[in-house]
Amino acid sequence: MARSIVIIGGGAAGGTAAQFAKKTDRNAEVTIFEKGKYPQYSKCALPYFISGKVEDVIEFSEKWFERAGIDLYLETEVKEVDLKDRVVIAEKNGESIEKKFDSLIIATGADPSVPPIDGIYDGEKIKKGVFSLRTLDDAKEIKNFLREVEDISIIGAGLIGLELSEAFYELGKSVKIIEILPSILPGMIDQDLAELVYQKIKDKVEIFVNHRVKKINGKDEVESIVVEGKDGDEKEFDADMVILATGIRPNTKIAESIGCKMGETRGIVVDKRSMTSIKDVYAAGDCTEYKDFVTGKAIPVGLGSIGVRQAMVAGVNAAGGNALLPEGFLQTRTTRIFDVEISAVGPLSKEIENSVQGKYSGKTLPHYFPGGEDIVIKTVINNSGEIVSAQAVGVGSALRINTFACAIYNKMNVEEFVKLETAYAPPIAPTLDPMIISADIARYRYGRK
Amino acid sequence: MARSIVIIGGGAAGGTAAQFAKKTDRNAEVTIFEKGKYPQYSKCALPYFISGKVEDVIEFSEKWFERAGIDLYLETEVKEVDLKDRVVIAEKNGESIEKKFDSLIIATGADPSVPPIDGIYDGEKIKKGVFSLRTLDDAKEIKNFLREVEDISIIGAGLIGLELSEAFYELGKSVKIIEILPSILPGMIDQDLAELVYQKIKDKVEIFVNHRVKKINGKDEVESIVVEGKDGDEKEFDADMVILATGIRPNTKIAESIGCKMGETRGIVVDKRSMTSIKDVYAAGDCTEYKDFVTGKAIPVGLGSIGVRQAMVAGVNAAGGNALLPEGFLQTRTTRIFDVEISAVGPLSKEIENSVQGKYSGKTLPHYFPGGEDIVIKTVINNSGEIVSAQAVGVGSALRINTFACAIYNKMNVEEFVKLETAYAPPIAPTLDPMIISADIARYRYGRK
Repeated sequence: MARSIVIIGGGAAGGTAAQFAKKTDRNAEVTIFEKGKYPQYSKCALPYFISGKVEDVIEFSEKWFERAGIDLYLETEVKEVDLKDRVVIAEKNGESIEKKFDSLIIATGADPSVPPIDGIYDGEKIKKGVFSLRTLDDAKEIKNFLREVEDISIIGAGLIGLELSEAFYELGKSVKIIEILPSILPGMIDQDLAELVYQKIKDKVEIFVNHRVKKINGKDEVESIVVEGKDGDEKEFDADMVILATGIRPNTKIAESIGCKMGETRGIVVDKRSMTSIKDVYAAGDCTEYKDFVTGKAIPVGLGSIGVRQAMVAGVNAAGGNALLPEGFLQTRTTRIFDVEISAVGPLSKEIENSVQGKYSGKTLPHYFPGGEDIVIKTVINNSGEIVSAQAVGVGSALRINTFACAIYNKMNVEEFVKLETAYAPPIAPTLDPMIISADIARYRYGRK
Repeated sequence: MARSIVIIGGGAAGGTAAQFAKKTDRNAEVTIFEKGKYPQYSKCALPYFISGKVEDVIEFSEKWFERAGIDLYLETEVKEVDLKDRVVIAEKNGESIEKKFDSLIIATGADPSVPPIDGIYDGEKIKKGVFSLRTLDDAKEIKNFLREVEDISIIGAGLIGLELSEAFYELGKSVKIIEILPSILPGMIDQDLAELVYQKIKDKVEIFVNHRVKKINGKDEVESIVVEGKDGDEKEFDADMVILATGIRPNTKIAESIGCKMGETRGIVVDKRSMTSIKDVYAAGDCTEYKDFVTGKAIPVGLGSIGVRQAMVAGVNAAGGNALLPEGFLQTRTTRIFDVEISAVGPLSKEIENSVQGKYSGKTLPHYFPGGEDIVIKTVINNSGEIVSAQAVGVGSALRINTFACAIYNKMNVEEFVKLETAYAPPIAPTLDPMIISADIARYRYGRK
């Protein structure tokens, strides 16, 4: 009899897992239960959907899944997993669907975390004008509501908060961002680089770091917010719309209900095969946690690029194949905000004991060639001289960070890294690429310790 | 007494060696004898100097060397090296200069190789209208002569030939390139990718592959050239100017005069410290040869990026420091011709026994995001599954090739490479970067062998 693989959740992780399961065992029955009404789409594209830059965020249509021989159930909520009989019980339009499984893949994603701020709720519901951005429906609601809006406050200066601020700016709105920590993009880059990014974007969006939102005012809908600086100073800002961009919380209800082991970061724990603590039950994407490659510490899987790679492994293994995750995730990450490309890989500097840093500010082309762009690159090495993280701001930073990712993956010593021959031609790059120079500065400083 | 380091040749290799020698031993006396009249300049920028895109190709001025405490003698030719007494005898304006040395660095570069074509010479001199491009003076002469020129034939479709064809095209000239081999850029990329590049540029420059130049006609100056196809078919083309772009030949006269060991490719042999077969005599740049990282075979050091890295090592060691070359050179290389970015690292596919290739043509952005550019990437693995070379055509190909360079340097297996987390964000790169997809295709094909 054909193997049955059931996947809970049809986001990027669920959809990818289905695809790789089917690729691995062509005869398997692969079923996806997705509670939302859309087939696999790009969550990372939602800010661009709001700005209008992207019209369609669907990555794989219902037709695509049909042709791939994958049963995709939309608007179908999983109610129960019966581990003993290996049955998933779901519900669509009030009707119950039962599906036996040989392997189960949990890809239930994450929900936005709602911070404990006075005035977010209107009774039991989130107040009119307050939004999070997580799903395509969220994006559509924001887009609709925007028409009547002038002043927007975004709570949180992380990736989503900043990407949204750009979208709103392009639509002609006045945007403020309130960040409780001392710098923007606090989970993505070190404070010194964050300061640099801040200087480049501060004319387009007002950002208040070291500020917390005390209260959202307005009876039936948002009217203003009250913020408090670290020094105790209070301000009130007009706001027709408030965006909560304060992170996510893994959605683990189903996994917990069957007893999957949960981790320190409250995500589902998976092993190198992306299997949970329960045999034949796999998990992938934002509902899970995994090890950081460098520190070995548990980290939430919050990046699409990681979730997809995990899903590939889960899908292959669920279908009887044999695939392994790397020993940890590098967390290679990038974004572009107001034309500033920002990229990083590996832990923040403060998470590395006795780290040594080399920072270089230069141009992407030789000085004599016109058109070179500014780039800043930081290389971080640990106390054995291994490259453990890197951050960059400027055009081409993401592709340079990929080379650092490769170096970190190979536990490359900075002594070796500086020998790397980078491609050189006057219209393309200088003789020594800025990443090599930044590493060489780290090497020099390490040598003098 | 202060250590004396004498460097013969003030090009990128000589100048860099001087810089690193001085950095290593601040008290050393560092002397450069350069026979040309310019301080260190970028040879790779000369095509752009001719087109007018770059105005000044000088990288480090005489003043810079003075401030760095390096004695730079221009228009000074080395006549003899007395190894026994450790003296270099040079001549400037008819006057003899003697300089004792503790270490000697030979950075005499290369000369253009002149192919055996009938009609190149007018008596003993190269005929009027026939040029090579090697020095800044060559570039100036070409630039001057260009004014009276309409039809230009370039012999050789390598990097220099193609870069020059673009410069001439931009200046409104009619350009033909004659290449004896079956494809353009024959030393840089495989034939399939060369065909792709050819298709993109063929409307701007006429290229005749599989053609050899039989004769250059014209009594006192160039009037036409006669070419012969592989099929024996002869054609005659009008030409006011002929460029010889058929490669270089290492300039090793001085090295040979003192008995340095020469290699298979007729370059000076150096060890991992960049030292020649003679103690305390180092060599760097285009006059040398070294091992290819992947094949271990001797290769001429013809790339600026390699020459500079070699010079850094030679300079440090000549000054009593301790630096090592990598075990071989990766030959990371790139150019942009008529807006087509072309990049490669490692040997051509045909040089790898039982190689397996994965080639992917895609976009630099997710399909739903506007502005994605075409990119083609080829990953080549050897019969152990190690990544040994890669080639790419398209925007961002050079920076992607740098990541492959890092993978090759670490002898990374394709099974590991495909696990690499590449930076993902809709405006910057797709979830799986095209380089990962190309490697995955190679992996798949390798698995089925």
